[in-house]
Amino acid sequence: MSLDVAATKPHERLAQALAPEMAAVNAMIRERMASEHAPRIPEVTAHLVEAGGKRLRPMLTLAAAKLCGYTGDYHIHLATTVEFIHTATLLHDDVVDESDQRRGRPTANLLWDNPSSVLVGDYLFSRSFQIMVETGSIRVLGILADASATIAEGEVLQLTVSRDLSTSEDTYLKVVRGKTAALFSAATQVGAVISGADQAVEQALYDYGDALGISFQMVDDLLDYGGTEAIGKNIGDDFRERKLSLPLIKAIAKSDADEMAFWTRTIAKGKQDDGDLEQAIAIMKKHGALEATRDEALAWSAKAKESLQSVPDHEIRTMLSDIADYVVARIN
Amino acid sequence: MSLDVAATKPHERLAQALAPEMAAVNAMIRERMASEHAPRIPEVTAHLVEAGGKRLRPMLTLAAAKLCGYTGDYHIHLATTVEFIHTATLLHDDVVDESDQRRGRPTANLLWDNPSSVLVGDYLFSRSFQIMVETGSIRVLGILADASATIAEGEVLQLTVSRDLSTSEDTYLKVVRGKTAALFSAATQVGAVISGADQAVEQALYDYGDALGISFQMVDDLLDYGGTEAIGKNIGDDFRERKLSLPLIKAIAKSDADEMAFWTRTIAKGKQDDGDLEQAIAIMKKHGALEATRDEALAWSAKAKESLQSVPDHEIRTMLSDIADYVVARIN
Repeated sequence: MSLDVAATKPHERLAQALAPEMAAVNAMIRERMASEHAPRIPEVTAHLVEAGGKRLRPMLTLAAAKLCGYTGDYHIHLATTVEFIHTATLLHDDVVDESDQRRGRPTANLLWDNPSSVLVGDYLFSRSFQIMVETGSIRVLGILADASATIAEGEVLQLTVSRDLSTSEDTYLKVVRGKTAALFSAATQVGAVISGADQAVEQALYDYGDALGISFQMVDDLLDYGGTEAIGKNIGDDFRERKLSLPLIKAIAKSDADEMAFWTRTIAKGKQDDGDLEQAIAIMKKHGALEATRDEALAWSAKAKESLQSVPDHEIRTMLSDIADYVVARIN
Repeated sequence: MSLDVAATKPHERLAQALAPEMAAVNAMIRERMASEHAPRIPEVTAHLVEAGGKRLRPMLTLAAAKLCGYTGDYHIHLATTVEFIHTATLLHDDVVDESDQRRGRPTANLLWDNPSSVLVGDYLFSRSFQIMVETGSIRVLGILADASATIAEGEVLQLTVSRDLSTSEDTYLKVVRGKTAALFSAATQVGAVISGADQAVEQALYDYGDALGISFQMVDDLLDYGGTEAIGKNIGDDFRERKLSLPLIKAIAKSDADEMAFWTRTIAKGKQDDGDLEQAIAIMKKHGALEATRDEALAWSAKAKESLQSVPDHEIRTMLSDIADYVVARIN
């Protein structure tokens, strides 16, 4: 392995290994986001899909299909489908969160309006099912319809428990499976299904996507409070938005009456002053909430790698394993 | 036929003829709108589905299946699916239109919030695909995925041409097919498909739903300007919302320079004063725009009835024909 290759990040190595397939996916995305009658649809979609996301989810589908020795064309369809569902979710999330920035650019709802984000999201979601239908696989349709329902359910759950100090880790995990892990696990699973992989391999790839997605979200939660070491940049968004993220849930579980009064004021009632974020982090550190979140993120990353033991030995398997390491590299 | 029966409306007679099937559909709606993790989902859904809509769309699916002699259970699934897609559309429409009333009750986005309406709509849409998957019919999935894409595309198109005085009747028809007719025609078509009806019958039932939906929307457009006779109650909403409905498009096509200046001020720029609605109606009448809209609505209703000539003779066929008459009865 040359130094150059060693220096690239694992998702970049995966992108290199899947370059022809990803080119086909990008071509299909451009082709299928078109609308004969409503030119706003490709405008809004292009703003988002060309914003330089890593395309991790469609790559997971392509990787799973390649690992399983798939030789047909439908992995391109399914990877496109997964990216369309993801894009539809982002469009609706920005309306739900009233966001004005995503990937460092103004959101579609800011550049156009909320109606465009809602309706273009609906269009992409419908398009994704049209593309799935072309594969002729009812099982694939079932898996992605289930994932879509889990995503929406997780988002509604997040909405209803937001600012609720009694949120349990169990509820947190349901929200995270909806927000993040459901599409990761469906992405890898449909790659196996379309390849006719046996049940053990399909389950292993599902488990990998599920654990990777959960680890991914826990790392995000942790970094938003600066990680376990020094306080980094751009921290505190979750605190200001009063999100019941894992470090907060773990801290609340061990808080005394004074600390609970602090959480009630800052999170439940949303009355935040200067110094409150530092105080929140101090309480989290005192109770080992950041360390415990880190341990869980690492455990899910390890679980993702373990799942890969049941899939065929392949250079792609090594890359997927490296991605599971990479997700937690920032906190390890 | 007793006087009692003669006095009922055709959609009520259809509801009577399909009472056992509609009971099964209502049971499935209640069962499938549940969410183990997010109780807000059934709350929001129940608010809408129990608001006393006529359930015309699911009845069209059941009617088509019955006409075609279907003996299985999947017509219940498909009728539920059609109602879920319709409900999801209504939830998103209320966010798009910033409505606060639907069917005489406060909208879900007013009672809860926009995020709930967006996400519960997404959930119902995903659920509808899950239920379709249970039928095992890829063709049905294709038809309803296509209809969903047409709906979203029509709504985006409506958004982008709103207040645009150059909107053509061709564009209007595309918007109407999206907003209304696509789900009507898919509802009847999937009833035929699940029954294994031959191609001619399937096409006839598709054509019936398409023409019925278009007629339905044109009648709505006309009544919003008071119809061709006296000025009724609750008119002028489309004028105030500056919608390019059919009477307006037809009037614009024949307007002189002074009249165009009036449309530019009131519709394109939205500067409306007392007396403008009366003036708009006067211009429409002068150019025969209301009469011409009425004629088109009647022609689409006739086309719906004509389509039924290719389907089996059956009491349900008579009821569908009567529904096509009933839709235009208010303007005839």
